[in-house]
Amino acid sequence: MKFGGTSVANLDRIRNVARHVKREVDAGNQVAVVVSAMAGKTNELVDLCRQASRLHDAREYDAIVSSGEQVSAGLLAIVLQEMGVDARSWLGWQIALHTDSSHGAARITEIDGDRLIERLEMKQVAVVAGFQGISPDNRIATLGRGGSDTSAVAVAAAIKADRCDIYTDVDGVYTTDPRIVPKARRLGRISFEEMLEMASLGAKVLQVRSVELAMVHGVRTFVRSSFDDPDAPQVGVDNLPPGTLICDEDEIVEQQVVTGIAFSKDEAQISIRNVPDRPGVAATVFGPLSDANINVDMIVQNISPDGSTTDITFTVPQTDYDRAMKVLEDGRAELKFGVLEGATDVVKVSVIGVGMRSHAGVAAQCFRGLAEKGINIRAITTSEIKISVLIDSAYTELAVRTLHSLYGLDG
Amino acid sequence: MKFGGTSVANLDRIRNVARHVKREVDAGNQVAVVVSAMAGKTNELVDLCRQASRLHDAREYDAIVSSGEQVSAGLLAIVLQEMGVDARSWLGWQIALHTDSSHGAARITEIDGDRLIERLEMKQVAVVAGFQGISPDNRIATLGRGGSDTSAVAVAAAIKADRCDIYTDVDGVYTTDPRIVPKARRLGRISFEEMLEMASLGAKVLQVRSVELAMVHGVRTFVRSSFDDPDAPQVGVDNLPPGTLICDEDEIVEQQVVTGIAFSKDEAQISIRNVPDRPGVAATVFGPLSDANINVDMIVQNISPDGSTTDITFTVPQTDYDRAMKVLEDGRAELKFGVLEGATDVVKVSVIGVGMRSHAGVAAQCFRGLAEKGINIRAITTSEIKISVLIDSAYTELAVRTLHSLYGLDG
Repeated sequence: MKFGGTSVANLDRIRNVARHVKREVDAGNQVAVVVSAMAGKTNELVDLCRQASRLHDAREYDAIVSSGEQVSAGLLAIVLQEMGVDARSWLGWQIALHTDSSHGAARITEIDGDRLIERLEMKQVAVVAGFQGISPDNRIATLGRGGSDTSAVAVAAAIKADRCDIYTDVDGVYTTDPRIVPKARRLGRISFEEMLEMASLGAKVLQVRSVELAMVHGVRTFVRSSFDDPDAPQVGVDNLPPGTLICDEDEIVEQQVVTGIAFSKDEAQISIRNVPDRPGVAATVFGPLSDANINVDMIVQNISPDGSTTDITFTVPQTDYDRAMKVLEDGRAELKFGVLEGATDVVKVSVIGVGMRSHAGVAAQCFRGLAEKGINIRAITTSEIKISVLIDSAYTELAVRTLHSLYGLDG
Repeated sequence: MKFGGTSVANLDRIRNVARHVKREVDAGNQVAVVVSAMAGKTNELVDLCRQASRLHDAREYDAIVSSGEQVSAGLLAIVLQEMGVDARSWLGWQIALHTDSSHGAARITEIDGDRLIERLEMKQVAVVAGFQGISPDNRIATLGRGGSDTSAVAVAAAIKADRCDIYTDVDGVYTTDPRIVPKARRLGRISFEEMLEMASLGAKVLQVRSVELAMVHGVRTFVRSSFDDPDAPQVGVDNLPPGTLICDEDEIVEQQVVTGIAFSKDEAQISIRNVPDRPGVAATVFGPLSDANINVDMIVQNISPDGSTTDITFTVPQTDYDRAMKVLEDGRAELKFGVLEGATDVVKVSVIGVGMRSHAGVAAQCFRGLAEKGINIRAITTSEIKISVLIDSAYTELAVRTLHSLYGLDG
């Protein structure tokens, strides 16, 4: 079970979390709980680091910031004990949850589940401080943004949990953002691959890293609402409470062709026109961007009628747009391009579904549907289970609603 | 170097601490710094534990409360780095500073100084989170009240430091409390034994436990003011900056007969009169008090003229007075005493000095001096290096001033 910062924001909420945990214990389950820091706490600690020095050491930042989860884990353990539930807090170094040396954004390398399993078998709840591990040089290392989701999935994998329940401020994964499409439906189940695409392409319910980890280790991950009554019955459709199970494709009986529509506004488009078309031109364009740590996404290359010049269009994260334009402008002498253009009022809309593998025509249906609404497509990328199109951001709602209806997702 | 909570209360003060540290580093010293939590932080965390449960688990309390020192140690390391001083924070489990299992009031059992020494030799400042260690079951254990002073002395012993400098809100150890006796003088040096008596008998400048530890390990401990200008010259009398060195007797050249006058108002007197005088009567009185964890201090027993009954007078800490009276009242049937009396408006005044060992008449001088002022002595205890008398608290100032003058301590 994983609870985020708003779920442990104060002692009343921590008591509510404890009731959720007690319910599972009373049902005979062995439970590990991963918690974030109390809401606002991490920002407060980050601010202290910034005040101490603008260029603060990442190891010390980690020692400081990780203390937030240390407090919330200890408090939840105390509250559980007061409710008569045996519980013990666990810090990253106590488990131990090993990471690499990338302090501030460390990756988990290995978790030893033995100590936790030993306690779980004694019917003791393990309350694990999220977001933290221990680096090879015996230092606290934090996992970076969304780290607690990742901790939860990693702990679940290490203790071979039947399920990893992520309690969050939404009650599951939807076919698309319900704020844009009121007819959006909550999915009962979604495959790891689809969820990974959904998360990568704009759905914010889970961090991409945690979904990756769940997929690699086959951790069945259940997204559910932290606002649910802790004492409500826990059996509904598929023997699960309300929420969305992220699981292996095999566990999904009635697979739809398209599972969801995602969109991301954090996109910027860059076009370079009339570049002399010679071998290695792409490397000349994208090498410097890569050197500047700018992630290039959708790439479209057209050739001119006479074959002498080419146009290259691609997208970058909106936050990197100015930097990317500068890198390219600096390389103008070498690239010898005619025009450098860009746009930040664009959105990437994606159609996702593992059913595409076995159904032809899904992409054509998408392009036709958008064309019928007069929506111009600036760029396209596809993978085995998704189609992404770049369009003017003014058309976001129209495009998402159109595709949502088109693929029969409306509830 | 050890700095308390008010010295690291905010980032400006932490920067001031860093200047003290940098001065020592610039002078060519290898430095370990022990810090408390930012002022107010520990209370805030203790409050959270209490809100979570009135009967909170000591292990979880320790996990939560120790996070305060974790933050201040990290911040000081960052600030030192910003000043160009290589520094690294150390938590109790990283050193490791081993303790027993008495969570909340753990005692240090062993410190491994090797890891710290290795870094110190690389000219890296070790910033140690005070107040915390690691228990035999791999849990954070806090050292209880005054724990950071104890941490500092223990670290100093482990790294074989030349000196342990305790920066505090007073500028040294005085012959007595300057608020009571304006003529009180700061002592340049005081022996471990004397300091232990001073601390045990009411002087609050250092915790008793830290002095004990300093004495056992021969750690020369220097009490000095945290308000000193960090950039002031560091050489004065005896090649030391202003402050008091607590050291071995041998290091003190001109030893006075009496070094200081301490007093403690946390005393209550209890008298049991007309107890039938039979063998084992003392055990019958003090056994139940000991069982109730009540510390009995000065004990005076008189016999009646006919030898059939006895009067027993003793003191207990004021906070245990009501409990002690109840324990005795409950034992009335067995003890068969006549009258049970008590008083809480009493004070214990103590004359301390290793010179007493070789000078006779110090006690007689004390009794005579008090008698001349009309001060009645309720009880007396003595040791090799101290004389304590119990008197009415109304005479505290008069008694302390009288003795301070009598033994030539006035400045």
